[in-house]
Amino acid sequence: MARLPNSIQDVIDEFSRLPGIGPKSASRIVFYLLSKPNDEIKKLSQSILNLKENLHVCNTCYNYGESDPCEICSSDQRDRKTICVVEEPLDVIALEKAGFKGLYHVVGGVISPILGIGPDDLRIRELIDRVKNESDTIEEIIMATNPTLEGEATAVFISEQLQILPLKVTRLARGLPIGGDLEYADELTLSRSLEGRKEL
Amino acid sequence: MARLPNSIQDVIDEFSRLPGIGPKSASRIVFYLLSKPNDEIKKLSQSILNLKENLHVCNTCYNYGESDPCEICSSDQRDRKTICVVEEPLDVIALEKAGFKGLYHVVGGVISPILGIGPDDLRIRELIDRVKNESDTIEEIIMATNPTLEGEATAVFISEQLQILPLKVTRLARGLPIGGDLEYADELTLSRSLEGRKEL
Repeated sequence: MARLPNSIQDVIDEFSRLPGIGPKSASRIVFYLLSKPNDEIKKLSQSILNLKENLHVCNTCYNYGESDPCEICSSDQRDRKTICVVEEPLDVIALEKAGFKGLYHVVGGVISPILGIGPDDLRIRELIDRVKNESDTIEEIIMATNPTLEGEATAVFISEQLQILPLKVTRLARGLPIGGDLEYADELTLSRSLEGRKEL
Repeated sequence: MARLPNSIQDVIDEFSRLPGIGPKSASRIVFYLLSKPNDEIKKLSQSILNLKENLHVCNTCYNYGESDPCEICSSDQRDRKTICVVEEPLDVIALEKAGFKGLYHVVGGVISPILGIGPDDLRIRELIDRVKNESDTIEEIIMATNPTLEGEATAVFISEQLQILPLKVTRLARGLPIGGDLEYADELTLSRSLEGRKEL
Protein backbone atom coordinates (compact mmCIF):
# COMPACT_ATOMS: atom_id res chain seq x y z
CA MET A 1 0.00 0.00 0.00
CA ALA A 2 1.41 3.39 -1.04
CA ARG A 3 1.76 5.72 1.90
CA LEU A 4 0.37 9.24 1.94
CA PRO A 5 2.75 12.20 1.57
CA ASN A 6 4.29 12.99 4.99
CA SER A 7 2.83 16.48 5.26
CA ILE A 8 -0.69 15.09 4.71
CA GLN A 9 -0.21 12.14 7.07
CA ASP A 10 1.10 14.48 9.80
CA VAL A 11 -2.02 16.63 9.77
CA ILE A 12 -4.28 13.55 9.67
CA ASP A 13 -2.43 12.18 12.73
CA GLU A 14 -2.71 15.49 14.57
CA PHE A 15 -6.43 15.83 13.84
CA SER A 16 -7.10 12.21 14.80
CA ARG A 17 -5.93 13.04 18.33
CA LEU A 18 -8.68 15.61 18.83
CA PRO A 19 -11.84 14.51 20.65
CA GLY A 20 -14.64 13.30 18.38
CA ILE A 21 -12.41 13.03 15.29
CA GLY A 22 -11.38 9.62 13.99
CA PRO A 23 -8.90 8.85 11.20
CA LYS A 24 -11.66 8.99 8.55
CA SER A 25 -13.02 12.39 9.57
CA ALA A 26 -9.43 13.61 9.87
CA SER A 27 -8.71 12.55 6.27
CA ARG A 28 -11.87 14.27 5.10
CA ILE A 29 -10.87 17.50 6.86
CA VAL A 30 -7.32 17.40 5.50
CA PHE A 31 -8.40 16.86 1.89
CA TYR A 32 -10.94 19.63 2.36
CA LEU A 33 -8.12 21.91 3.53
CA LEU A 34 -5.99 20.89 0.52
CA SER A 35 -8.72 22.20 -1.77
CA LYS A 36 -8.68 25.60 -0.03
CA PRO A 37 -6.41 28.58 -0.82
CA ASN A 38 -3.20 28.97 1.20
CA ASP A 39 -4.36 31.97 3.22
CA GLU A 40 -7.35 30.05 4.61
CA ILE A 41 -5.00 27.30 5.80
CA LYS A 42 -2.71 29.92 7.33
CA LYS A 43 -5.64 31.54 9.12
CA LEU A 44 -6.61 28.24 10.76
CA SER A 45 -3.01 27.51 11.73
CA GLN A 46 -2.50 31.02 13.12
CA SER A 47 -5.72 31.01 15.16
CA ILE A 48 -4.63 27.76 16.83
CA LEU A 49 -1.17 29.21 17.54
CA ASN A 50 -2.76 32.29 19.15
CA LEU A 51 -5.20 30.24 21.21
CA LYS A 52 -3.55 30.75 24.58
CA GLU A 53 -2.37 34.28 23.79
CA ASN A 54 -3.96 36.95 26.01
CA LEU A 55 -5.74 34.17 27.83
CA HIS A 56 -5.80 33.95 31.61
CA VAL A 57 -7.28 31.53 34.07
CA CYS A 58 -9.35 33.68 36.42
CA ASN A 59 -8.14 33.27 40.01
CA THR A 60 -11.65 33.81 41.34
CA CYS A 61 -13.81 31.43 39.27
CA TYR A 62 -11.10 29.43 37.40
CA ASN A 63 -12.76 29.98 34.06
CA TYR A 64 -10.77 31.21 31.04
CA GLY A 65 -10.84 34.95 30.45
CA GLU A 66 -8.99 37.79 28.78
CA SER A 67 -8.20 39.33 32.18
CA ASP A 68 -7.85 38.21 35.79
CA PRO A 69 -10.39 38.49 37.41
CA CYS A 70 -12.32 37.55 34.29
CA GLU A 71 -15.04 39.56 32.54
CA ILE A 72 -17.84 37.79 34.42
CA CYS A 73 -16.25 38.06 37.89
CA SER A 74 -15.46 41.75 37.42
CA SER A 75 -18.75 42.72 35.77
CA ASP A 76 -21.27 44.86 37.69
CA GLN A 77 -24.05 43.56 35.47
CA ARG A 78 -24.07 40.14 37.13
CA ASP A 79 -26.08 38.89 40.10
CA ARG A 80 -23.30 38.53 42.71
CA LYS A 81 -25.58 36.71 45.18
CA THR A 82 -25.52 33.43 43.25
CA ILE A 83 -22.59 31.18 42.35
CA CYS A 84 -23.06 28.30 39.97
CA VAL A 85 -20.62 25.43 40.53
CA VAL A 86 -19.68 23.64 37.27
CA GLU A 87 -17.21 20.95 36.26
CA GLU A 88 -15.58 22.50 33.19
CA PRO A 89 -15.29 25.85 31.36
CA LEU A 90 -17.49 24.38 28.58
CA ASP A 91 -20.38 24.16 31.06
CA VAL A 92 -20.13 27.92 31.57
CA ILE A 93 -20.87 28.45 27.87
CA ALA A 94 -23.97 26.23 28.13
CA LEU A 95 -25.27 28.11 31.19
CA GLU A 96 -24.53 31.49 29.60
CA LYS A 97 -26.62 30.43 26.61
CA ALA A 98 -29.40 29.35 28.98
CA GLY A 99 -29.45 32.92 30.35
CA PHE A 100 -27.85 32.47 33.80
CA LYS A 101 -26.91 35.87 35.21
CA GLY A 102 -24.93 34.98 38.34
CA LEU A 103 -21.29 34.07 38.90
CA TYR A 104 -19.47 30.77 38.34
CA HIS A 105 -16.98 28.50 40.00
CA VAL A 106 -15.23 25.94 37.79
CA VAL A 107 -14.08 23.07 40.03
CA GLY A 108 -12.17 21.41 37.19
CA GLY A 109 -13.74 17.95 37.09
CA VAL A 110 -15.43 15.44 39.37
CA ILE A 111 -14.34 13.27 42.26
CA SER A 112 -13.51 9.88 40.73
CA PRO A 113 -11.83 7.22 42.87
CA ILE A 114 -11.36 5.04 39.75
CA LEU A 115 -9.34 7.76 38.01
CA GLY A 116 -7.63 8.67 41.30
CA ILE A 117 -9.20 12.14 41.42
CA GLY A 118 -9.92 13.19 45.01
CA PRO A 119 -11.47 16.39 46.43
CA ASP A 120 -8.01 17.96 46.76
CA ASP A 121 -7.46 17.70 43.01
CA LEU A 122 -10.48 19.92 42.41
CA ARG A 123 -10.93 23.58 43.34
CA ILE A 124 -13.30 22.85 46.22
CA ARG A 125 -11.08 24.39 48.92
CA GLU A 126 -10.93 27.55 46.77
CA LEU A 127 -14.74 27.58 46.53
CA ILE A 128 -15.17 27.34 50.34
CA ASP A 129 -12.62 30.13 50.89
CA ARG A 130 -14.29 32.29 48.27
CA VAL A 131 -17.73 31.80 49.80
CA LYS A 132 -16.37 32.50 53.31
CA ASN A 133 -14.65 35.70 52.15
CA GLU A 134 -17.76 36.97 50.45
CA SER A 135 -20.31 35.60 52.90
CA ASP A 136 -21.97 39.05 53.07
CA THR A 137 -22.90 38.96 49.39
CA ILE A 138 -23.34 35.30 48.45
CA GLU A 139 -26.77 33.85 49.20
CA GLU A 140 -27.03 30.77 47.02
CA ILE A 141 -24.77 28.11 45.55
CA ILE A 142 -26.24 26.21 42.61
CA MET A 143 -24.63 22.80 42.10
CA ALA A 144 -24.49 22.39 38.32
CA THR A 145 -22.20 19.39 37.96
CA ASN A 146 -23.31 16.87 35.33
CA PRO A 147 -26.21 14.50 36.14
CA THR A 148 -23.83 11.51 36.17
CA LEU A 149 -22.88 9.26 39.07
CA GLU A 150 -19.62 11.14 39.68
CA GLY A 151 -21.27 14.50 39.12
CA GLU A 152 -23.96 13.74 41.71
CA ALA A 153 -21.41 12.47 44.23
CA THR A 154 -19.27 15.57 43.74
CA ALA A 155 -22.32 17.81 44.19
CA VAL A 156 -23.25 16.00 47.42
CA PHE A 157 -19.66 16.21 48.69
CA ILE A 158 -19.37 19.94 48.01
CA SER A 159 -22.76 20.72 49.51
CA GLU A 160 -21.76 18.89 52.70
CA GLN A 161 -18.63 21.03 52.91
CA LEU A 162 -20.77 24.12 52.51
CA GLN A 163 -23.21 23.18 55.28
CA ILE A 164 -21.11 25.05 57.88
CA LEU A 165 -22.01 28.28 56.07
CA PRO A 166 -25.41 30.03 56.30
CA LEU A 167 -26.45 29.86 52.66
CA LYS A 168 -28.82 28.06 50.35
CA VAL A 169 -27.36 25.19 48.33
CA THR A 170 -29.45 24.04 45.36
CA ARG A 171 -29.11 21.50 42.55
CA LEU A 172 -30.24 21.82 38.93
CA ALA A 173 -33.65 20.17 38.36
CA ARG A 174 -33.75 16.70 36.88
CA GLY A 175 -36.60 15.73 34.59
CA LEU A 176 -37.66 15.21 31.01
CA PRO A 177 -35.64 17.19 28.50
CA ILE A 178 -37.65 19.63 26.37
CA GLY A 179 -38.57 18.01 23.05
CA GLY A 180 -37.98 14.58 24.58
CA ASP A 181 -40.33 11.65 24.33
CA LEU A 182 -41.85 10.00 27.43
CA GLU A 183 -41.65 6.65 25.67
CA TYR A 184 -37.88 6.88 25.27
CA ALA A 185 -37.04 8.43 28.64
CA ASP A 186 -35.02 6.14 30.94
CA GLU A 187 -36.63 5.01 34.20
CA LEU A 188 -34.45 7.14 36.46
CA THR A 189 -35.15 10.33 34.54
CA LEU A 190 -38.87 9.57 34.52
CA SER A 191 -38.93 8.77 38.25
CA ARG A 192 -37.00 12.01 39.02
CA SER A 193 -39.42 13.84 36.82
CA LEU A 194 -42.37 12.39 38.81
CA GLU A 195 -40.78 13.32 42.13
CA GLY A 196 -40.12 16.85 40.96
CA ARG A 197 -43.58 17.41 39.42
CA LYS A 198 -45.07 20.88 39.75
CA GLU A 199 -48.62 22.18 40.06
CA LEU A 200 -49.98 23.77 36.89
CA MET B 1 -24.63 36.61 27.74
CA ALA B 2 -20.89 36.96 28.37
CA ARG B 3 -18.91 36.40 25.20
CA LEU B 4 -15.98 34.03 24.99
CA PRO B 5 -12.42 35.41 24.89
CA ASN B 6 -11.58 36.37 21.27
CA SER B 7 -8.73 33.91 20.88
CA ILE B 8 -11.03 31.02 21.88
CA GLN B 9 -13.93 32.22 19.71
CA ASP B 10 -11.60 32.57 16.70
CA VAL B 11 -10.48 28.94 16.87
CA ILE B 12 -14.07 27.74 17.42
CA ASP B 13 -15.13 29.69 14.31
CA GLU B 14 -12.25 28.28 12.26
CA PHE B 15 -12.95 24.70 13.31
CA SER B 16 -16.70 25.09 12.70
CA ARG B 17 -15.93 25.69 9.03
CA LEU B 18 -14.35 22.26 8.59
CA PRO B 19 -16.52 19.44 7.22
CA GLY B 20 -18.28 17.35 9.85
CA ILE B 21 -17.54 19.76 12.70
CA GLY B 22 -20.35 21.87 14.14
CA PRO B 23 -20.05 24.65 16.73
CA LYS B 24 -20.47 22.20 19.63
CA SER B 25 -17.75 19.79 18.50
CA ALA B 26 -15.55 22.81 17.73
CA SER B 27 -15.97 24.08 21.32
CA ARG B 28 -15.13 20.65 22.68
CA ILE B 29 -11.97 20.48 20.57
CA VAL B 30 -10.87 23.97 21.58
CA PHE B 31 -11.33 23.38 25.31
CA TYR B 32 -9.49 20.08 24.90
CA LEU B 33 -6.62 21.98 23.28
CA LEU B 34 -6.65 24.53 26.10
CA SER B 35 -5.99 21.72 28.56
CA LYS B 36 -2.92 20.60 26.57
CA PRO B 37 0.66 21.91 26.90
CA ASN B 38 1.77 24.69 24.54
CA ASP B 39 4.07 22.54 22.43
CA GLU B 40 1.22 20.19 21.50
CA ILE B 41 -0.81 23.15 20.30
CA LYS B 42 2.20 24.44 18.35
CA LYS B 43 2.68 21.03 16.75
CA LEU B 44 -0.91 20.98 15.49
CA SER B 45 -0.65 24.54 14.21
CA GLN B 46 2.71 23.87 12.51
CA SER B 47 1.54 20.66 10.82
CA ILE B 48 -1.40 22.55 9.28
CA LEU B 49 0.92 25.35 8.12
CA ASN B 50 3.22 22.77 6.47
CA LEU B 51 0.33 20.93 4.82
CA LYS B 52 1.00 22.09 1.28
CA GLU B 53 4.76 22.20 1.65
CA ASN B 54 6.64 19.71 -0.56
CA LEU B 55 3.27 18.71 -1.96
CA HIS B 56 2.69 18.42 -5.70
CA VAL B 57 -0.30 17.54 -7.82
CA CYS B 58 0.92 14.72 -10.05
CA ASN B 59 0.54 15.67 -13.72
CA THR B 60 -0.09 12.08 -14.69
CA CYS B 61 -2.78 10.89 -12.26
CA TYR B 62 -3.72 14.24 -10.58
CA ASN B 63 -3.38 12.78 -7.10
CA TYR B 64 -1.32 14.56 -4.41
CA GLY B 65 2.27 13.41 -4.06
CA GLU B 66 5.67 14.46 -2.81
CA SER B 67 7.04 14.45 -6.34
CA ASP B 68 5.74 14.80 -9.91
CA PRO B 69 5.13 12.17 -11.23
CA CYS B 70 3.94 10.87 -7.87
CA GLU B 71 5.23 7.83 -5.98
CA ILE B 72 2.53 5.57 -7.42
CA CYS B 73 2.93 6.71 -11.05
CA SER B 74 6.72 6.38 -10.90
CA SER B 75 6.82 3.08 -8.98
CA ASP B 76 7.93 -0.10 -10.75
CA GLN B 77 6.07 -2.16 -8.14
CA ARG B 78 2.66 -1.31 -9.57
CA ASP B 79 0.61 -3.08 -12.21
CA ARG B 80 0.84 -0.56 -15.06
CA LYS B 81 -1.79 -2.37 -17.16
CA THR B 82 -4.72 -1.16 -15.06
CA ILE B 83 -5.91 2.39 -14.34
CA CYS B 84 -8.57 3.01 -11.73
CA VAL B 85 -10.61 6.17 -12.37
CA VAL B 86 -11.74 7.86 -9.14
CA GLU B 87 -13.48 11.11 -8.24
CA GLU B 88 -11.22 12.45 -5.46
CA PRO B 89 -7.78 11.85 -3.89
CA LEU B 90 -9.57 10.45 -0.79
CA ASP B 91 -10.87 7.58 -2.93
CA VAL B 92 -7.26 6.61 -3.71
CA ILE B 93 -6.65 6.06 0.03
CA ALA B 94 -9.69 3.78 0.23
CA LEU B 95 -8.56 1.72 -2.78
CA GLU B 96 -4.98 1.52 -1.49
CA LYS B 97 -6.34 0.10 1.76
CA ALA B 98 -8.41 -2.39 -0.22
CA GLY B 99 -5.17 -3.62 -1.81
CA PHE B 100 -5.44 -2.27 -5.37
CA LYS B 101 -2.05 -2.52 -7.08
CA GLY B 102 -2.59 -0.66 -10.33
CA LEU B 103 -2.45 3.04 -11.24
CA TYR B 104 -5.00 5.81 -10.67
CA HIS B 105 -6.57 8.72 -12.44
CA VAL B 106 -8.28 11.35 -10.28
CA VAL B 107 -10.88 13.10 -12.44
CA GLY B 108 -11.64 15.67 -9.73
CA GLY B 109 -15.38 15.25 -9.22
CA VAL B 110 -18.48 14.22 -11.14
CA ILE B 111 -20.49 15.66 -13.99
CA SER B 112 -23.32 17.59 -12.34
CA PRO B 113 -25.57 19.80 -14.50
CA ILE B 114 -27.22 21.18 -11.32
CA LEU B 115 -23.87 22.44 -9.99
CA GLY B 116 -22.80 23.50 -13.48
CA ILE B 117 -19.98 20.95 -13.67
CA GLY B 118 -19.53 19.65 -17.20
CA PRO B 119 -17.08 17.08 -18.65
CA ASP B 120 -14.59 19.87 -19.47
CA ASP B 121 -14.33 20.80 -15.76
CA LEU B 122 -13.04 17.29 -15.00
CA ARG B 123 -9.79 15.67 -16.11
CA ILE B 124 -11.45 13.40 -18.66
CA ARG B 125 -9.56 14.83 -21.67
CA GLU B 126 -6.32 14.18 -19.75
CA LEU B 127 -7.39 10.57 -19.11
CA ILE B 128 -8.12 9.93 -22.80
CA ASP B 129 -4.76 11.45 -23.81
CA ARG B 130 -2.95 9.42 -21.18
CA VAL B 131 -4.59 6.18 -22.30
CA LYS B 132 -3.84 6.97 -25.96
CA ASN B 133 -0.18 7.71 -25.21
CA GLU B 134 0.27 4.52 -23.26
CA SER B 135 -2.01 2.32 -25.35
CA ASP B 136 0.74 -0.31 -25.56
CA THR B 137 0.74 -0.87 -21.80
CA ILE B 138 -2.78 -0.12 -20.57
CA GLU B 139 -5.24 -2.98 -20.85
CA GLU B 140 -8.05 -2.11 -18.47
CA ILE B 141 -9.76 0.98 -17.08
CA ILE B 142 -11.75 0.41 -13.89
CA MET B 143 -14.45 3.01 -13.34
CA ALA B 144 -14.45 3.59 -9.57
CA THR B 145 -16.59 6.70 -9.27
CA ASN B 146 -19.06 6.65 -6.38
CA PRO B 147 -22.24 4.55 -6.74
CA THR B 148 -24.40 7.70 -6.83
CA LEU B 149 -26.53 9.04 -9.67
CA GLU B 150 -23.83 11.52 -10.72
CA GLY B 151 -21.06 8.98 -10.20
CA GLU B 152 -22.83 6.43 -12.44
CA ALA B 153 -23.52 9.04 -15.12
CA THR B 154 -19.89 10.16 -15.08
CA ALA B 155 -18.71 6.55 -15.34
CA VAL B 156 -21.00 5.94 -18.33
CA PHE B 157 -19.86 9.19 -20.00
CA ILE B 158 -16.17 8.39 -19.58
CA SER B 159 -16.55 4.79 -20.76
CA GLU B 160 -18.31 6.05 -23.92
CA GLN B 161 -15.35 8.34 -24.60
CA LEU B 162 -13.00 5.38 -24.17
CA GLN B 163 -14.89 3.13 -26.61
CA ILE B 164 -12.73 4.34 -29.51
CA LEU B 165 -9.76 2.65 -27.85
CA PRO B 166 -9.12 -1.10 -27.82
CA LEU B 167 -9.25 -1.76 -24.07
CA LYS B 168 -11.47 -3.28 -21.42
CA VAL B 169 -13.57 -0.83 -19.38
CA THR B 170 -15.03 -2.22 -16.13
CA ARG B 171 -17.06 -0.89 -13.23
CA LEU B 172 -16.74 -1.74 -9.51
CA ALA B 173 -19.27 -4.42 -8.50
CA ARG B 174 -22.45 -3.33 -6.76
CA GLY B 175 -23.96 -5.58 -4.11
CA LEU B 176 -24.45 -6.14 -0.42
CA PRO B 177 -21.72 -4.58 1.72
CA ILE B 178 -19.80 -7.06 3.91
CA GLY B 179 -21.31 -7.17 7.39
CA GLY B 180 -24.54 -5.70 6.04
CA ASP B 181 -28.00 -7.05 6.70
CA LEU B 182 -30.29 -8.23 3.89
CA GLU B 183 -33.27 -6.90 5.81
CA TYR B 184 -31.92 -3.35 5.80
CA ALA B 185 -30.49 -3.30 2.28
CA ASP B 186 -32.27 -0.87 -0.07
CA GLU B 187 -34.13 -2.33 -3.06
CA LEU B 188 -31.67 -1.07 -5.67
CA THR B 189 -28.65 -2.56 -3.90
CA LEU B 190 -30.47 -5.86 -3.44
CA SER B 191 -31.61 -5.96 -7.08
CA ARG B 192 -28.03 -5.19 -8.24
CA SER B 193 -26.79 -7.88 -5.93
CA LEU B 194 -29.21 -10.39 -7.49
CA GLU B 195 -28.17 -9.41 -11.03
CA GLY B 196 -24.51 -9.78 -10.14
CA ARG B 197 -24.86 -13.11 -8.32
CA LYS B 198 -22.03 -15.60 -8.69
CA GLU B 199 -21.85 -19.38 -8.73
CA LEU B 200 -20.45 -20.86 -5.53
